[in-house]
This record gives sequence, C-alpha cells and structure tokens, in this order.
Amino acid sequence: MQRIATVGIISKPNIQRAVDIVSGLLAWLEARSVRYRCDEQTALYGGVTQWYKREELTPGTDLVIVLGGDGTLLSAARAVAGTDIPILAVNLGRLGFLTSIALEDLYPELERALAGEIHIGRRRMLDCDLVRGEQVIGSYSALNDVVINKGMIARMIDLDTYVDNHLVTAYKADGLIISTPTGSTAYSLSAGGPIIYPTVSAFCLTPICPHTLTNRPVIVSDSSIIEIMNHGDEGTFLTVDGQVGEPMSKGDRVICRSSSKIISLIRPPQLLFFDVLRKKLKWGER
Amino acid sequence: MQRIATVGIISKPNIQRAVDIVSGLLAWLEARSVRYRCDEQTALYGGVTQWYKREELTPGTDLVIVLGGDGTLLSAARAVAGTDIPILAVNLGRLGFLTSIALEDLYPELERALAGEIHIGRRRMLDCDLVRGEQVIGSYSALNDVVINKGMIARMIDLDTYVDNHLVTAYKADGLIISTPTGSTAYSLSAGGPIIYPTVSAFCLTPICPHTLTNRPVIVSDSSIIEIMNHGDEGTFLTVDGQVGEPMSKGDRVICRSSSKIISLIRPPQLLFFDVLRKKLKWGER
Amino acid sequence: MQRIATVGIISKPNIQRAVDIVSGLLAWLEARSVRYRCDEQTALYGGVTQWYKREELTPGTDLVIVLGGDGTLLSAARAVAGTDIPILAVNLGRLGFLTSIALEDLYPELERALAGEIHIGRRRMLDCDLVRGEQVIGSYSALNDVVINKGMIARMIDLDTYVDNHLVTAYKADGLIISTPTGSTAYSLSAGGPIIYPTVSAFCLTPICPHTLTNRPVIVSDSSIIEIMNHGDEGTFLTVDGQVGEPMSKGDRVICRSSSKIISLIRPPQLLFFDVLRKKLKWGER
Amino acid sequence: MQRIATVGIISKPNIQRAVDIVSGLLAWLEARSVRYRCDEQTALYGGVTQWYKREELTPGTDLVIVLGGDGTLLSAARAVAGTDIPILAVNLGRLGFLTSIALEDLYPELERALAGEIHIGRRRMLDCDLVRGEQVIGSYSALNDVVINKGMIARMIDLDTYVDNHLVTAYKADGLIISTPTGSTAYSLSAGGPIIYPTVSAFCLTPICPHTLTNRPVIVSDSSIIEIMNHGDEGTFLTVDGQVGEPMSKGDRVICRSSSKIISLIRPPQLLFFDVLRKKLKWGER
Repeated sequence: MQRIATVGIISKPNIQRAVDIVSGLLAWLEARSVRYRCDEQTALYGGVTQWYKREELTPGTDLVIVLGGDGTLLSAARAVAGTDIPILAVNLGRLGFLTSIALEDLYPELERALAGEIHIGRRRMLDCDLVRGEQVIGSYSALNDVVINKGMIARMIDLDTYVDNHLVTAYKADGLIISTPTGSTAYSLSAGGPIIYPTVSAFCLTPICPHTLTNRPVIVSDSSIIEIMNHGDEGTFLTVDGQVGEPMSKGDRVICRSSSKIISLIRPPQLLFFDVLRKKLKWGER
Repeated sequence: MQRIATVGIISKPNIQRAVDIVSGLLAWLEARSVRYRCDEQTALYGGVTQWYKREELTPGTDLVIVLGGDGTLLSAARAVAGTDIPILAVNLGRLGFLTSIALEDLYPELERALAGEIHIGRRRMLDCDLVRGEQVIGSYSALNDVVINKGMIARMIDLDTYVDNHLVTAYKADGLIISTPTGSTAYSLSAGGPIIYPTVSAFCLTPICPHTLTNRPVIVSDSSIIEIMNHGDEGTFLTVDGQVGEPMSKGDRVICRSSSKIISLIRPPQLLFFDVLRKKLKWGER
Repeated sequence: MQRIATVGIISKPNIQRAVDIVSGLLAWLEARSVRYRCDEQTALYGGVTQWYKREELTPGTDLVIVLGGDGTLLSAARAVAGTDIPILAVNLGRLGFLTSIALEDLYPELERALAGEIHIGRRRMLDCDLVRGEQVIGSYSALNDVVINKGMIARMIDLDTYVDNHLVTAYKADGLIISTPTGSTAYSLSAGGPIIYPTVSAFCLTPICPHTLTNRPVIVSDSSIIEIMNHGDEGTFLTVDGQVGEPMSKGDRVICRSSSKIISLIRPPQLLFFDVLRKKLKWGER
Repeated sequence: MQRIATVGIISKPNIQRAVDIVSGLLAWLEARSVRYRCDEQTALYGGVTQWYKREELTPGTDLVIVLGGDGTLLSAARAVAGTDIPILAVNLGRLGFLTSIALEDLYPELERALAGEIHIGRRRMLDCDLVRGEQVIGSYSALNDVVINKGMIARMIDLDTYVDNHLVTAYKADGLIISTPTGSTAYSLSAGGPIIYPTVSAFCLTPICPHTLTNRPVIVSDSSIIEIMNHGDEGTFLTVDGQVGEPMSKGDRVICRSSSKIISLIRPPQLLFFDVLRKKLKWGER
C-alpha cells in the first residue's frame, strides 16, 4: 500500500456526536500533515467550508474513512468502486458486518494505516444490467445484493430465472435476492439465506416468501451469469444495495455477473469474520 | 473415455423386479461381448454363480452400473472412489438426485457409453479424519456428508468448530452436518441448508436443531480445513454418507478437507442439475 | 339449513371456459326453479342482462356460489360476511385451500345443498381497526389475514406490538402478518408460519423477513386484543385479505380482535382439511 | 392458596454454590417455623440426614421449591403432577423459560408466598400412552413434549399420524415432536416450531428434519386426540420431557391427549411471558 497523503471522509447524517468526532479527526490529520477531502455531511460536522461530491472525492485520495453504519458504507462503496482505495469503516452506532471498526479503534487503526500496516479484506462486487428489449437501460454494481421485489400493488413477482442459460425455476414470490457473499449477512439472511464466507466464489439466490415452499436458497458459482425475466405486468422494482432503482416492465431482464470491481475494507487484525458473526448474531462464546 | 470392455454391476437388495432387470442387462451385455462383474446382490438377481466383493469389483472395470437409489449409489461410491471409473446410476424407484437415470433410459445410455458419447458430472468428495489425542483412528471419504450427531442418551452435542484454525462457534445442537455441494440436496436440505450447485467450490456447515436459533448454515471455501472438537461426554457419533461410523469420545476431533477423490457420474444429456431439482422438489414448470 | 330458493353467483374475471360453465349452471338452476342473482362478471359470462353489485347480491339469497380461486372467495367473503349464507366455492383452476370443490363436483354438491345435506366448515373472521390519534379511520374484517408491510421507499417497518396491553416486541422487518387459522395456509405460510387447524381459537403473528433472526411466529389466543403501533415515518401500508388498504402514518395503530362474523364454507364430505393440505403441499400418500 | 406449613425442595446436582444456597434457605425456613422436606440432592447440599424420594416428597407439602434449570423443573414436575402444589422454580444458571425466578428473587418471592400473595401460571400437561397391539405398555405425562425419534441405526422414522382419526400425513423424518404451548419454546423451537402463548388450547406437531420439505409445523386443538403409528422396523424411541423412555417396535402406537394434570408455576409479578421471551431470545428492547 502506498503512503497515505490524502484521505477522503464520508459521514452518516444526523449523528449528534459526529460533530466532535469529525472535529477531532480533522485536527488529528492536520497534526500529521495528512490532507483530507470531506463530503458535504462531513464538512458540515467539521465546520469546513470546502466539500466534495462523493464521485469527486475519491480521485487523488489514498484512503477513505467512512463514519456511520453499513448503509453509509454501501453508499460510499458506490463512490469508491473501481478504484483501489482502501476503506476504513467506523461504526458510529452498533457494530456492523461491514463497519466492524469501533470508534475507539479509529486512531489506532489510522496509525497503523499511516504506517502501512493494515489488514485488507477484499470484497468482490456484483455487476447487474437492466435490459429492456435489446437495450441496456441501467447498469449497477452491488457490494451486498441486487433485489427484485414487488411494490404495494402487485400481489407477487413472477420471475423466470436462468443460470448460464439453464432454467432454474419461475419464482412466484414477494421478491428475489441475488446476493454476494458479503451481502449474505444482510437482507438475504433475514429472508432465510445461509451465511457465506467472504472468499467463497459464489452468489446466492434467495427468494422472499416464495409461494412454492420448497424454493430454497440456491448457491451458484460466481462465474455464472444469472438472468431473470420479469413476467409480472406491473409493480416490480429493481433495488441495488438498498437503493431503489428502477421500476421494471413486463419482459424486462436483469442480468447479473461477477464484477471486476473490488472493495478493499480495512479490518481490525484481531477481529475476524466469524468473530463479527458471533457478536452480531449473539452466538455466545464458550 | 476409454473403450468399455468390462462393466461392474452393483444392485440394491430386496427389489422384486430387479431379477428381470438384471437378467435382461446381463443378456444385453453378453450380446455385445461386454464382460461384467457382479456384486453379491446382482449375482443373486441374475442367477450368476461368480460374484465379487465391492472392493474387488472395480479393478479392471471400465464402467460401474448402479441399480437402486441414492443410498446404493453412496455405498457404491465408496468402492469406486479413487478410481476414474464412471458410474451409470439407474433409479429403480423414484428419481434420485444422484440416480437421475430412469430405467427406460438404461439401454440408450449404455449404447451411448459404449459409443463413448457420455456426459459426465464430476463430484468432488470430502475427506475426513477422526482424531483421538495425537492419533488418527479413522479416515473416511464422503460424497454427500459427514455428520456428527447425538445418540439417544445425549441431550445434545457440544462441538467447538474451527475453520482454518479460527473459531466459528461452539455448536449446541442435535448434530452438525458438513456437506459437499452434492450432499446439499440430501440431509442438509432437510436440516434447513441451501442448495449448492455441484461445481461451487464450497462446503456447508448445517447445524441440526441448534439451541441458538441464529446458528444458520455457513458456507465456507472447500480449500478450508474444518476442525470440530467434541466437548460432550458421551453419546456422540460420526456418520459418513449415512453409514454410522464411530462413537466419539470427549476431546475427539473430526478434521474435514477437500478430497483428491472424484466421482464421475454419467448424466442424461437432456437432464441438468436444475431439471432434477425442479422434479424432485416439485417446483413446477411455467 | 333452510330451503334454497335463491342463489347468488360470483365469478372470477377472464376465465375463458367460464362462459360455458355459467351458462350450464344457470340452465341447471332454472330447470330446478331456483332463482339466481349474478354479479357483474357472472352476468357477462351467462349473457344475463340484470346483475347485482356484490353488496346487494346477498340479501334474500340462501346460498352463494363462488366460481374462481381463493382470491375470488376472499373478495366474495367481504360481501357475505355478517350473514349466515353458506358459500359453495368451486375452483376453476387449481385446488385452493378455500375453493376446495372441483368443477366436476359442482352439481353433486348443489344437489346435496338443495336436499339440505351439506357439510359446513365455519371460519371465524378477524376484525381490525385502523386508529389515528383517538379516531378510528378504517374498520375491516379479514378471513385470512391483516398485513402491515413496507412499501418500496421504506427500508423496513418498525412496529411496537402488544398483546392484551403487554409488549411482545418492536418488530423491525419487511412486514407483519396477523393471520387467522384460515389464513395460516396463505401468506403466513410463505413467510414461515405454521399451519393452524381451522377450529383452533388462535391468531398467528408472523413477521416477514425480520432483522432479528429469533423473531419467530407467535401464536396467541383469539380472545386476545392485538395492538400494533407504527413507528416508521412513511411508506407503511395496511392490507386486508390481499386488498391494499390504507397508507399508515407515524403513530397510527392497528387493533385486531376476533370477529363476530363467520364464513360458512360448504366442503365436500370426503375432503377434510388435512386431505386438502396433503394435496396442496404435495405431502404424498402412503 | 392455603397457608404454607411445609415446603419440599428439589435441587439440580453438581452445582458448587448450591451448598451455600441450600444452607441459607433451610435456615431461613427454620427461622420462620416452616417445615421442609429435601430430596436426596438437596439433603446433600444442606447437610441434612433425612431425605425423601421425589414421589414421597410431595404428600403433605404446600409448596415445592426447585433449584436448578428447566431440566430440573421438568423432572420435578413428574413428582408434582396431579397435585395442586405450586412450584417456585429458581434458576441457578441462566434464566429459563420455566425457571424464570432469579436467585436474588428467591426470598422476596418466598415472603410473598408465605403471605399468600403469589401469581400462578397454570400449565396444562399432555398425556401419552404407548400402545402395543391392544395393550397400553406405558403411560406418561409431559409438561413440554412427547418426542418420537430415530436412534443411531435407523435412517429415519416413518410415522402415520392421525388427528381425531383423520390422517395428517406419513412423516418421514428424524423425529416428530408433539409439544404443549409450554414446550413450544423448548425443543420444538429448535426444530422450527412457532412460539405458542401458554394459555392457547393447542398442541403443535413439529417434524424434525422432514424429508418432505413442505411438512411444516401443524397446530391442532388440545381437544384433539393425536395418534401416531410407527412403521419403521427398528431404532425408534419415545422420549417424554427429555427422559428417554421406550424403544418402539413396528406397529406400536403413541396416543396423545390433553391431560387433567396441571402444573402451577409461581411467576414473578413483573415478568410476563413475553418479557421472558424477549430476554431469552435476545429480541432487544426499544
């Protein structure tokens, strides 16, 4: 990892104590002659007049600090995706699966980062095209998941699903989640999906409230191409990493494949995947 | 695939109509000058005096025909494991996940096999050592799964589980299944595990009736080493592919890793993994 | 049961063969001097000029025939609720949990009904008030279920739930289903709820994709009063028997209790609850 | 409730600090001129020479104190069943669903009990007969559950299950749990069953790892008679409240019905059913 000369900072809105945290962080960086670029919210917290749109924040940045929760991290990931910039994600509330660094570990981790001694967890993203007829009308990258679900009017979705051109089934359900291993501990878990270790090269197809009770989660290789065609007339929506995207028309297709984009998450050396899992899911210790 | 000069035949016991089936098969093979080696049960069905123990049946054999169900196939796999001999597995009852060739397709598939035109699905096995103190007291290979479960006396198992030397959790449950992708549609599915496409390089840890309700199935890479230590005093058993193996003592460890052994299953060209799934799980067609 | 002089007929739209079925049915009734009242759709199928709004169809009617699926029956139940009129529900497609009479059994069942020899399954409804501040802004009766769920914009619902004034929990989920025993085989089943025999005096609270994985379905007595308060800011909706009802504001409450209304379903004498269950869920026979 | 002149005390074995607890309790009772009867383990802890077999402990006793966990309470319930004696169940370890009184509340609760100011939760038991041919070969009462499951040798159980003489299904599974509402938070919950409020008049049939994935838990009225016939050849066992009972032969039947026996559990006035649930299942508070 190269020397850290400039860091970007992205913050969650409406956190009262973030004012003190950001002010402290900016002073700490200044004291070490590290330049910083704040997003709008961080600038607000820190009383800094200059701020950057998220997509302009990353160029020339050597590290991105995220202050917030998993939602803030997912949103920051969209700005960072496609670069090699590592993310130091600090939870300002409860421990997150992605924001696994506690506030009290912010400065120790930063010290280590400045010294070039960080541990990186690399999380591969999922690319997704929304196709109408022959035309791609939207392209997205997801760190967690791509979700096709019904709105309030539709009774259910009705989705023909293919893996490498072979029919899996026609899902009739409230929705269908295509999840990365990273996303397996998010929405997919609530819908009944398994936990997938981050380095497994796979996607999980998790139906939400399927009418066919035997429609269990299906794990496929991440070298597969997943194609989903909407048979429902109206009221079907595509959501990427929790951001509502596009209403889908009848016949629209969503095509998912492994992305070349990777998110590099700095993780505390003493806190491994299963440690976070045990804490978050309250599995207890011996 | 080399020319088929000799086939081995392994049959399920107590199938009345198997007498006719085996007689017909032997005549068919003789008419084509293909030599055959029968296991004890097949010899009984076919009225043949010479028979081979299963472990002596495979040497010099170019193809093994299994007549029965998934249980018969698992048992045959133990004899074939470590060779490259393809298996043609015919279901004599209901369609199986492994015995996906129907009786009426036996001769068409055999014709294709003799002509060298077969489709092979390769299923990697899972190796497992049972270790007491410093000593390996048993070594097994599983096509489907390794199961550690409680007998009638124990109230539950209590298992410290590690993946690559990192603690996953201490499972308190009726049992723990370590499943291959192939086994994901067997016992693991009944216990709440996901369906894993056969080519995904992963294992699934599926707890059976865990006391901790959030102990959901965990998918790990098949390059991982899984180590499980028995904390329970008595009444814990190790079962491999449905064959009850060894009672486990307190402190005994089970160590699982990917095997070098591969089972080569001949599959009907028109019947893919998801087709079998839809039929077996009654997912329906559009 | 009193003599059947007049029947009401309610039909599902867009069923091509319904034209013949309705024409046949009307002729059959005329031949037996039974008067009939058609809803708009039935009149269309039967080429009858006079038709009745559903709420005007039931007065003076001795029997209501429903031709369609479970959705048509639920819709018809709203018109029949609060009367004692039995419903003869014929499935025009696949066997339904509620429309358990096959088309070929329509006339035999009608013969029996005219002879006064019917079997009735009585299904108690669930009453539900939507309360804003101190005011009831909507009152509904459900045969299957009352559902509070999130729309497309909300990330999740956030519902404080009380049973007889005691806090159950604050659900954070995609939605919450309050189901009657009758509704236990409908949406609640897809969301992971148990099957409840129709005569059990209970409701089931089934969360949809709960964030807290241990939030399992809860069965409470149907003498309980269930009160749910919406904590979410926006994007929460109340749905009764699959009919989208009202958008809910922050602080709105839904209060559910057992109804005095009962739906009387005629069922084939040879087809009991568990028989329908085995067929619908493909449990197989010995 | 009558005046408490004599209490029985039943303790869990192998709890080191129980020596102090029991000594303190006996002194406390003596100071208030309350007589006591100890079971063998309690006598051992308290250094008392006279002790009573559990079945001889209850006659003439006005209150039974249980010191231990839910397992100790289940075992004590067998001795108390059929009497009206209330049970004060103190957890010596973690909060139990049944042993919901913490050690620090022992004396306050006892004070209240001596003053006649207790809250009682009444839990109805389940009676169960094991029938071979025409003969009842065992009769049991369960507070939590009756379980029929496979031993190590059997591959699965195969059970024809009838409710009020109507076939439910032929379960092929690892086991079948017939649970009371009280037992719904015990083994049944681990096997995927719902939570049933204690006053609901119902039983739950929860299959363990069913081969048929749609075999979901079924709730039936507690006025039903449940009859289960064992089709498996060998290796099937009947377990009542966690006590392994009888090996079952082919053709053996288990007949379950509501019991006339009721267990009266003293519960802390401030700790209701859903409060215990939230704590035990870590549902969190608002």
